[in-house]
Amino acid sequence: MTGPGTGRLSLNTATIKRSTLPEAVEIAAEAGYDAVGLWRDRVQETGATVAAKIVAEAGLRVSSLCRGGFLTAADDAGIAAALDDNRRAVEEAATVGTSELVFVVGGLPANSSPGAGPRHDAGAADRDLVAARSRVADRIADLAPFAAEHGVRIVLEPLHPIFAADRAVISTLGQALDLAAPHPADVVGVVVDTYHVWWDPQLETMIARAGAEGRIASYQVCDWILPLAADPLLSRGYVGDGYVDFPTITRWVSDAGYTGDIETEIFHQEIWDTDPRTVAATVADRYARYVLPSLPG
Amino acid sequence: MTGPGTGRLSLNTATIKRSTLPEAVEIAAEAGYDAVGLWRDRVQETGATVAAKIVAEAGLRVSSLCRGGFLTAADDAGIAAALDDNRRAVEEAATVGTSELVFVVGGLPANSSPGAGPRHDAGAADRDLVAARSRVADRIADLAPFAAEHGVRIVLEPLHPIFAADRAVISTLGQALDLAAPHPADVVGVVVDTYHVWWDPQLETMIARAGAEGRIASYQVCDWILPLAADPLLSRGYVGDGYVDFPTITRWVSDAGYTGDIETEIFHQEIWDTDPRTVAATVADRYARYVLPSLPG
Repeated sequence: MTGPGTGRLSLNTATIKRSTLPEAVEIAAEAGYDAVGLWRDRVQETGATVAAKIVAEAGLRVSSLCRGGFLTAADDAGIAAALDDNRRAVEEAATVGTSELVFVVGGLPANSSPGAGPRHDAGAADRDLVAARSRVADRIADLAPFAAEHGVRIVLEPLHPIFAADRAVISTLGQALDLAAPHPADVVGVVVDTYHVWWDPQLETMIARAGAEGRIASYQVCDWILPLAADPLLSRGYVGDGYVDFPTITRWVSDAGYTGDIETEIFHQEIWDTDPRTVAATVADRYARYVLPSLPG
Repeated sequence: MTGPGTGRLSLNTATIKRSTLPEAVEIAAEAGYDAVGLWRDRVQETGATVAAKIVAEAGLRVSSLCRGGFLTAADDAGIAAALDDNRRAVEEAATVGTSELVFVVGGLPANSSPGAGPRHDAGAADRDLVAARSRVADRIADLAPFAAEHGVRIVLEPLHPIFAADRAVISTLGQALDLAAPHPADVVGVVVDTYHVWWDPQLETMIARAGAEGRIASYQVCDWILPLAADPLLSRGYVGDGYVDFPTITRWVSDAGYTGDIETEIFHQEIWDTDPRTVAATVADRYARYVLPSLPG
């Protein structure tokens, strides 16, 4: 099966987050996708070994696993917990059959316990952003050898600066590349997610740099829509519904030499409330209209 | 009068936006401020000549005038209207007695008519962000000689990337400095507004660069609070209520050699609904607690 994506189309299953992993894989395969991006909670429901089997039997690949990260804790217990959880994430990525483990590195520390959402309690926050970013560099160094042993790449995801306080202190692609720089390209890479980086004046330059360094581990497409949802985390749109210039950014990513899977990951309440087969079809259609024409031959 | 700000404290009158210009100036003077930042709508109510007199008689300075900008139109009529409006803004700045005219440069073009708010109609938007940014550079070049003749500086304000689609395609201090670079430092400068730039991994470097180039025209202090307000434009907090590291950023700005006024500009419905004398006192108190201790001597 070549699929509507000419071999590169991946559905991040958070886009149809109510579906279990077996359901999501079946829907993606039926809709002609080539790959799926998985989340740890759904993988853990079946176990990583079974999850790998389900995906393979459907004729799909795992393009990425979400997510490791949450590395900004300043206290010993928080650091130990983060390292422990991320080692398990590395093992799950290896077992489920992907080399790409996406890291969302966490916000300012009082908001960054693994799995915790934003607490919106600025009074309790450590405001030292420089130090939080420095701890991220330290934790990546701690984890890189373990990831390398397992053939898994730590994939740093810059998040839109709207999330700098409460979710990810990596805010630009350039910063992610600087954090990756001390490590081999097959051990620490970066995601280019249009939703998070479309606004960046340095985007073309930094995509080219990421490509030249061999660090583009995933290209994710998702639109910036307005007005923002009450929870900005859920304020993402189908490709084509917002302000992102997909032909241009897709050309930059292609020119940088990236030939891997292209994932759509959308968090949006209305989309989650839609029949997942309709969502999968819409995502594939938007990909065909706004992304595919800008890919080489 | 030295005032609680040791000579540098300015109240941007949009923080107490229900007050007329004469009311706002009286409140600022009574509360011990040294300067006020004014908005064109309130200046136009009295006329710029009268506004200048009111401020001077209260013993205050005008630290800045808001705002010029909205430069991203692609059509001839839109370009002509923007140039015309900005020339009037330059004249108003000169008359009201400030050299610093703050520019908010506008979003993607369908949303950028002067005075128009966000339209949230992505379908009608031109998504070519690179071209919109290039037009901003062209319009600055068009306006720079006129501003120079009037002794007024075009002060580029990078806005938080949350506003890149609908309000300002200048998203970082580094980008603002690149746009300013072709022009003399006393003709095109930049604002450092903590609310907009606090998250930037290059902030320390770019503040130092802005200082070395003599382009810091205004330092504005305002906090990033969570959760975001439904209208993110109104999602600003008093210094100390959010996540911004004011001692660190203030030190960077001081180390860069900036010795000018320090303005507080907050847009927030609850603050607008508060008695303006209480707001002025709170702003001065927060300045004294979180900013002043990091200023030299």
